[in-house]
Amino acid sequence: MTPTQALPAVLDRIDAELDQSLERLFELMRIQSISTDSAYQEQCRTAAEHVARDLGSLGLAAELRPTPGHPVVVGKGGNGSGPHVLFYGHYDVQPVDPLDLWEAPPFAPRLAELPGGRKIIVGRGACDDKGQLMTFIEACRAFKTVLGRLPLPITMLIEGEEECGSKHLFDFVKQNADELHRDFALVCDTSMWDPQTPAITTSLRGLVYEEVKLTCADRDLHSGLFGGAAQNPLRVLAKVLAALHDENGRVTLPGFYDGVHELPPEVRADLAALELSAEEFLGGVGLKVPAGERDRMVIEQIATRPTAEINGMIGGYTGQGAKTVIPSQAMAKVSFRLVGAQDPQKIRDSFRTFVRARLPIDCKVEFGEFGSAPAIELPFDNPALVKTRAALSAEWGKKAVMVGEGGSIPIVGDFKRVLGMDTIMVGFALDDDRVHSPNEKYDLISFHKGTRSWARILAALAE
Amino acid sequence: MTPTQALPAVLDRIDAELDQSLERLFELMRIQSISTDSAYQEQCRTAAEHVARDLGSLGLAAELRPTPGHPVVVGKGGNGSGPHVLFYGHYDVQPVDPLDLWEAPPFAPRLAELPGGRKIIVGRGACDDKGQLMTFIEACRAFKTVLGRLPLPITMLIEGEEECGSKHLFDFVKQNADELHRDFALVCDTSMWDPQTPAITTSLRGLVYEEVKLTCADRDLHSGLFGGAAQNPLRVLAKVLAALHDENGRVTLPGFYDGVHELPPEVRADLAALELSAEEFLGGVGLKVPAGERDRMVIEQIATRPTAEINGMIGGYTGQGAKTVIPSQAMAKVSFRLVGAQDPQKIRDSFRTFVRARLPIDCKVEFGEFGSAPAIELPFDNPALVKTRAALSAEWGKKAVMVGEGGSIPIVGDFKRVLGMDTIMVGFALDDDRVHSPNEKYDLISFHKGTRSWARILAALAE
Repeated sequence: MTPTQALPAVLDRIDAELDQSLERLFELMRIQSISTDSAYQEQCRTAAEHVARDLGSLGLAAELRPTPGHPVVVGKGGNGSGPHVLFYGHYDVQPVDPLDLWEAPPFAPRLAELPGGRKIIVGRGACDDKGQLMTFIEACRAFKTVLGRLPLPITMLIEGEEECGSKHLFDFVKQNADELHRDFALVCDTSMWDPQTPAITTSLRGLVYEEVKLTCADRDLHSGLFGGAAQNPLRVLAKVLAALHDENGRVTLPGFYDGVHELPPEVRADLAALELSAEEFLGGVGLKVPAGERDRMVIEQIATRPTAEINGMIGGYTGQGAKTVIPSQAMAKVSFRLVGAQDPQKIRDSFRTFVRARLPIDCKVEFGEFGSAPAIELPFDNPALVKTRAALSAEWGKKAVMVGEGGSIPIVGDFKRVLGMDTIMVGFALDDDRVHSPNEKYDLISFHKGTRSWARILAALAE
Repeated sequence: MTPTQALPAVLDRIDAELDQSLERLFELMRIQSISTDSAYQEQCRTAAEHVARDLGSLGLAAELRPTPGHPVVVGKGGNGSGPHVLFYGHYDVQPVDPLDLWEAPPFAPRLAELPGGRKIIVGRGACDDKGQLMTFIEACRAFKTVLGRLPLPITMLIEGEEECGSKHLFDFVKQNADELHRDFALVCDTSMWDPQTPAITTSLRGLVYEEVKLTCADRDLHSGLFGGAAQNPLRVLAKVLAALHDENGRVTLPGFYDGVHELPPEVRADLAALELSAEEFLGGVGLKVPAGERDRMVIEQIATRPTAEINGMIGGYTGQGAKTVIPSQAMAKVSFRLVGAQDPQKIRDSFRTFVRARLPIDCKVEFGEFGSAPAIELPFDNPALVKTRAALSAEWGKKAVMVGEGGSIPIVGDFKRVLGMDTIMVGFALDDDRVHSPNEKYDLISFHKGTRSWARILAALAE
């Protein structure tokens, strides 16, 4: 029996098995695998071991592979005449602060219902990426049950540092290039266009993430005694960060837009036809007016244009009440989303030069580097992309759109640069999933039809 | 025997009693009376009770008087023909964060020695204001022992909310005006000019303290999904705060300099004659270049000119590593030092208007108010000032200078406005006392000669 012949039974099996699939997802979500905080190191390892055991149950030869950070899970199995695919996902999740905004404990996953009746899976990792990862694994499990084997040769690469910049995965991929270089890669870490319309992500923005720490005086000072004469690092930092954008929302770093291509007119027309209004995109999070470049559509601002963001900032007294202090230090985390051929290293250098040029004599700076990835694009005529699009469209009863995604998945850039391998990105996240925020969720339908989608895609690719 | 006749014996007694005086100071410093943090409420009360007991031992009728916040200690006693003075001090202290920068626990006071041999008292409150307060109390104690009574009628007003804006003292003073309106007030919460030169503070800068909280989206957002389109409150706040100063260091709030008087040429000449260099003033804290108005001397920048400072700022992810978040909220604490006839309410209004005018539609603001006090000035021909200056000069063997102080003591403004009462401010703090910072200290000689100074001043005032 071919995978395509088995497909109807596989889809039935997925439907019948939904409750059990969900419980397996919950098991994974209960593990507090916050990779960016070293206090959760043990839990990250526990998550890796859990995933490896689960892959073993599908007949994959799976093992933990060490890195200088959290371990990578690699699993290999399947046979047949189809292409050999590499599936990439991650078992780590974002921190959960601010904890007091969660309606229930973040690591106690549960089903809930939204007003209007949408069923949702709630908890940290519900979507990013445990929920999405499990759609692929559950599709494989259904093939294994019905067909007795996986539908095509699969290598799994499940990492534990995606949420802190995949900082050791690049070396891991380079060192294990032979093992990981497959016909193409599949990734499930992206979004649908809307709850009815499936999407394939054909471009991803890159990322440069910087930490800037300024130090002026060698101690905190009383603003009465020293105020007026002593340099204040918060004032300096505010000036520097305020200068990052001009009044039209353009980033002012010299050379920042080098390598940013204008979209071909027909692609821009396709995007315009989606008629994504500011109200529609921003209304769900309490906003109205796009804050990016004034001469760009919202869909460009979030997908095809580069950005600069202040992700965090701290300095001085931030507790209850008043403290009349001039702080010694101030810190900001600043990141840039990249598109086209923007060079991460040049942008990082330009940012550091920009900061240094704005510092008074009495202000020292230290920079920290967290993650660096160029943008990525998939050719529209890739044959696997064509098959995937047809399979997805069949499951959802609506033509899958091909879009650019605003977030980076650094590994996809590495696959292209190091292994010369293209990646097809299919995911079932929705804009209101509260990814990286309190009360993260994943629609039950995303999980269920996501699993069915992968079954159809794998059958199509195996032909 | 008159106080002046008793003075030589009183000074001897102070010298002989130094170790015991110090132990009494340490007892007070061990109480963790951090007024701005409600977790320390009990300890504040303990400090008040301790002070009241101590005043009782000097023969003062002392009691705790309730306020909506921490209690006020009021003590009354003494007789004789001299003027009736009101002594003001505070038993509360600043928070101790960042705790990891303290070389020893902040509430375990100790004697230490600086390179070069200066003996210092180290711990939170060593100077501000427990050390300074105890110089006055120990001088009174020596009179009580030698003379059997206080040298003149004294009312003590020791509050517990100076470090959080004296927010209930204004009403307390208004409600108890008859009891507190004395001939003039004495305050020990200011600095020497340098370790050899005593100083009387004849002007104090006022203070307006604001908290600004901006909210954009109703939740934290993923900077990949929303970056480019969603408004970032840190970006808005940086822009607002960066606009507070122009490139010459002047504050840009409309109307900010209304009521700021130019110094008379002779007073400006006196200040210039002190030859305070930027290096001298800033070198001790690791700085070199004055950050205030470019066309002003350092001594003007810190004493006779108004300022705007960012005392604290926080938003987004500030922990270890990277988090690609667009925060929902950002907060800053901003304060203004006032001089001359600047109106605190007008400055506060101008600031709020300034902030609101710079907010995009998608940004809401909440303001918090912490403290508000106009600047204050003492006439140079005040007779008590003349006596005090002579007594101080005799103790230190060097003419006491009359200076403006950069920090506010809001109560001094209330004494003037509500009670029509002038205040003479004499203190023994030094610029390197690390007031409000880790490892706060007070020179042993400040404590010892400060006590002797008060004995001389009280004797002179009693004549």
